[in-house]
Amino acid sequence: MIKPYAIGIDFGGTNTKLGLMHRSGRLIVQTAFPTADCSQPAAFVKRISLEVIGLLKKARVQKSRVAGIGIGVPGLVDSERGIIHTLVNVPGWDGVHVAALIRKQVKLPCRAENDVNAMAVGEFRFGAARGYRNVVCITLGTGVGGGLILNGQLYRGATLTAGEIGHIVVQPEGFRCNCGNKGCLEALIGSKGLMRAAHGLHTTPLLLAKAAKRGDRVAIRVWNQAARYLGIVFAGITNLVNPDVFVIGGGISGVGGFFFDKVRETLRRHAMSVPARHVKVVRAGLGNKGGIMGAASIVFEKN
Amino acid sequence: MIKPYAIGIDFGGTNTKLGLMHRSGRLIVQTAFPTADCSQPAAFVKRISLEVIGLLKKARVQKSRVAGIGIGVPGLVDSERGIIHTLVNVPGWDGVHVAALIRKQVKLPCRAENDVNAMAVGEFRFGAARGYRNVVCITLGTGVGGGLILNGQLYRGATLTAGEIGHIVVQPEGFRCNCGNKGCLEALIGSKGLMRAAHGLHTTPLLLAKAAKRGDRVAIRVWNQAARYLGIVFAGITNLVNPDVFVIGGGISGVGGFFFDKVRETLRRHAMSVPARHVKVVRAGLGNKGGIMGAASIVFEKN
Repeated sequence: MIKPYAIGIDFGGTNTKLGLMHRSGRLIVQTAFPTADCSQPAAFVKRISLEVIGLLKKARVQKSRVAGIGIGVPGLVDSERGIIHTLVNVPGWDGVHVAALIRKQVKLPCRAENDVNAMAVGEFRFGAARGYRNVVCITLGTGVGGGLILNGQLYRGATLTAGEIGHIVVQPEGFRCNCGNKGCLEALIGSKGLMRAAHGLHTTPLLLAKAAKRGDRVAIRVWNQAARYLGIVFAGITNLVNPDVFVIGGGISGVGGFFFDKVRETLRRHAMSVPARHVKVVRAGLGNKGGIMGAASIVFEKN
Repeated sequence: MIKPYAIGIDFGGTNTKLGLMHRSGRLIVQTAFPTADCSQPAAFVKRISLEVIGLLKKARVQKSRVAGIGIGVPGLVDSERGIIHTLVNVPGWDGVHVAALIRKQVKLPCRAENDVNAMAVGEFRFGAARGYRNVVCITLGTGVGGGLILNGQLYRGATLTAGEIGHIVVQPEGFRCNCGNKGCLEALIGSKGLMRAAHGLHTTPLLLAKAAKRGDRVAIRVWNQAARYLGIVFAGITNLVNPDVFVIGGGISGVGGFFFDKVRETLRRHAMSVPARHVKVVRAGLGNKGGIMGAASIVFEKN
């Protein structure tokens, strides 16, 4: 029997969102709760179970027609065994068999995946990367995450940790990053890095983005510098991975088109001409549904 | 009928080497000629044809038992159509359908591939990367080339130009590279970059390597700096691609073990701990046979 539905869970540091998706990419129903309400594994899994029952009831879909649950988590995860290595912003989850816990509680198959890997799958199947074969996804927010689709499949790498674009070193003796190293891309263009570059003149990246749109010169300079760092990293990835498209998502990707233009210009200036002429840089297409849809999508992935 | 042999051609700027290989990886016979003797397409292909006849005769192998010819070329190549885009160090080959020319002249199937991609396949099948699934190969010489094996297959990318590690930008406003950009890895640790760093105190990378082995302090400093640049690029690739192993080949990879140690140390310092602990950095296993064996290997590749 074909099971045409999947549940996607986007486990975030602030909010956890979940929804029921048809395999065609239609998001039928969705809901959310503050992660802090039940951030420990046992309470979290119980809450998920209740929310799943609610979603199925609301959508009038029988559980027997659900192929499984996918959960995207903000950190390193062993996606083969469904075990979380570590979540940078949510304590208490190291070594937790999250997929097994959900499977037991909800009585549905469950797969766990890094959240940006899941988003990459969602953008590839249903969003801005549809129709491409080699895709590099990046999310810009508090952290800078990444995910790779290579030859039409999620690429996980030797220890299932591929795609950590945010921790590529840009300035070997630069600012300390949350990961412990110095001068990572995330230390420069994650929220904290942007605020540092703005010398405290703006209090959040969104206000900094608004200021840039208003024409504030300090804000424009900070975004241009961030775009330059990102463009240089993209140039290196273009030479190495030779992708069709870069997809930029996450909270602070909503900054104006001038940011994207500067990223493209820097990329083309620092990459070889054949791959640079080919590659596109676009905004994520699924917006804030990308997390849920990506997580649900991994249920249908074969690899 | 099984055709257990392949001919591999390693088309180099200085010498062209070719050999007959059994699919088990045994190199039966080999030969070489100075590329300058017949560096234009028509003359080159005629020479290849004669050399192939000679190899088969010497090995007492019937042409009907040869599956095909693989040629590795030092530059960008459209491996799907067998057309050379451009060779940096051999003029007169832009746009040449090298695979078709050889096929017509020798009457055997022919595939063309970037030389470092071919070497990566050879190291993966028969050399230092045997048994690994995700492999990054790099050659250090006049140029700095790269090739990727991902999920057990040669990874070519969207425009078939993936793996150009030598042109990843390390110093955005650094020295001009042969590719036209500034501050590429090749501009820093290719032969020319090493000689520049040595302030003309040594005349070739090999002499510079010998000097370092003797304990010459300038030479040691130049190699340590080169290892640091390479280690930082490897750290970024480790975070992004999460490989099992880096394989270093090419003329100047014969420098002492201290160079490899410094590359490893820098990599571990600048990459995330899970992928960094996993990845190995090793010397190429096939030495100067790697070019021929890699080129012959691509005849047996499916993708």
